[in-house]
Amino acid sequence: MTDYKLEYVTRLFEKTNNKKIENYVITRLWHKLDNVDIKMVPQQYVSRDNSKYALTDIYFPQFGICVEVNEPAHYFTQEKIETDFKRNQEIEQKISCEVIEIDCRPSLSEIHKQIDDVVRIINNKIEIQKRNKSFNAWCPENEFSVEFWQKKKIIELNKNIGFFTIDDVCRLFNADPQKIKRGFLRKGAIAHPKNDKIVIWWPSVNPRSNWKNTYNQDTGEIIESNVDVQKNYNHFNWGLKNSETRIVFLHHKDVLGFATYKYCGVYQVNADKTRSLQKLVWTRISNKFNLETLEN
Amino acid sequence: MTDYKLEYVTRLFEKTNNKKIENYVITRLWHKLDNVDIKMVPQQYVSRDNSKYALTDIYFPQFGICVEVNEPAHYFTQEKIETDFKRNQEIEQKISCEVIEIDCRPSLSEIHKQIDDVVRIINNKIEIQKRNKSFNAWCPENEFSVEFWQKKKIIELNKNIGFFTIDDVCRLFNADPQKIKRGFLRKGAIAHPKNDKIVIWWPSVNPRSNWKNTYNQDTGEIIESNVDVQKNYNHFNWGLKNSETRIVFLHHKDVLGFATYKYCGVYQVNADKTRSLQKLVWTRISNKFNLETLEN
Repeated sequence: MTDYKLEYVTRLFEKTNNKKIENYVITRLWHKLDNVDIKMVPQQYVSRDNSKYALTDIYFPQFGICVEVNEPAHYFTQEKIETDFKRNQEIEQKISCEVIEIDCRPSLSEIHKQIDDVVRIINNKIEIQKRNKSFNAWCPENEFSVEFWQKKKIIELNKNIGFFTIDDVCRLFNADPQKIKRGFLRKGAIAHPKNDKIVIWWPSVNPRSNWKNTYNQDTGEIIESNVDVQKNYNHFNWGLKNSETRIVFLHHKDVLGFATYKYCGVYQVNADKTRSLQKLVWTRISNKFNLETLEN
Repeated sequence: MTDYKLEYVTRLFEKTNNKKIENYVITRLWHKLDNVDIKMVPQQYVSRDNSKYALTDIYFPQFGICVEVNEPAHYFTQEKIETDFKRNQEIEQKISCEVIEIDCRPSLSEIHKQIDDVVRIINNKIEIQKRNKSFNAWCPENEFSVEFWQKKKIIELNKNIGFFTIDDVCRLFNADPQKIKRGFLRKGAIAHPKNDKIVIWWPSVNPRSNWKNTYNQDTGEIIESNVDVQKNYNHFNWGLKNSETRIVFLHHKDVLGFATYKYCGVYQVNADKTRSLQKLVWTRISNKFNLETLEN
């Protein structure tokens, strides 16, 4: 079994195979930081005004820093420069992070200097965080560990929580994964063992036998629909009478190709939207869930 | 215009796009060495016994060091381990270099340690070479500079000399590139301005209008042939009467995709082989050529 971090970082490098300079900058950032406690996230999704969005080149979640690699084409026109400037300002506001641009027009040594600056900024932040005892080392063993989150008691959207198996999702709530195998309730979800009005649900974004789930990254909204008009009608009508709360773990492949059940928050049916869309709409009612008290 | 070294190194990284761990090791070696005076050469061709050959993963020509990245599959069988061991021993003898293996089975930190060792070995060698004043910094401006080689006076096979244009090849010998444009002698070659028994030739390995040149990397032999039997016959018979010496610059795309006219040595027709093969065979008679004395 290859080291998970090695697998993660090599996939991160692989993402930029078609962008030679971006690949150069990202590999250099990683190797010069030379610190396996630092997590680098590719293509962080940032929703922008007017239903636009941006994908930042590289994001350091521990330090609130985005790095944008500007290949020479970025500077071809004044218009492009201004568009990028506005875009980066918007990103800074939206996810309250600092966007650092690497200008790749100059010579190799100038590019190196800019990367050295980023390395210095991040190392300074680590020093300050360590002094404050606020530094959280990158620890995938925890990100994917049921025991770790059970000890934490509270699961939260911004903690990037995901599991590799349905068994792990069930174990988090002390639900018996054998029950889904024996056909209890329904495949794809299981009732909370302490409160059957709370349902643990792991929808997939992949369409299956005419069912389709869409997940909106900005709003978190999930819409269920069926190609078959009658089945779709029955389903959203069932949903309108439904008062259950769902804790959602979205099954998806992330940008690096790791398939996980990712925690997306606590949901309830949005009756108004369901009626107007004629499709079952689930709205996030909370980012948090307390595993002990079962409170949002 | 992008920096040549940046272009070179990013192409070097690109070569290993399909081998994630090799890519990780190569990017790390480059960034941790962090020294633009060091040249890294991909896929150095090493001829082996019994017409076998090997391509080393990465070669440091300034220090006589090859680095082999052994992905976990290298260790699946004892047989594979032994084959690789013999192969590396043969490479060490053939190009008198040291082969360092990186074992990529262990954890990320173990891989890092092995790379740190290579970095230390190379940095030590640089220190010793600098003390001896024998260190030659990587300088592509020289590799491709007519003026640089004219000052050196002697061109040599092992110096990896190549030019981007036919004009540069001509200028090296003070031959007038305008003459090939006016149809003097023949396209593809030009007589030396001081001695018309010496011809500067830039054959291509790409077939053109039924002509084909093959270049043997081990022996340096060049074989010219034509699909048309009569043309082929006429050509090798012309060659058998020919007593000219040729200085050869092979037009080819190197492993990183740079198209250059690469100096291959001094050649004469090999009459025996030509008769037996019924194709015109050129044999390398010298690795060296003196630009001033015109001696091999």
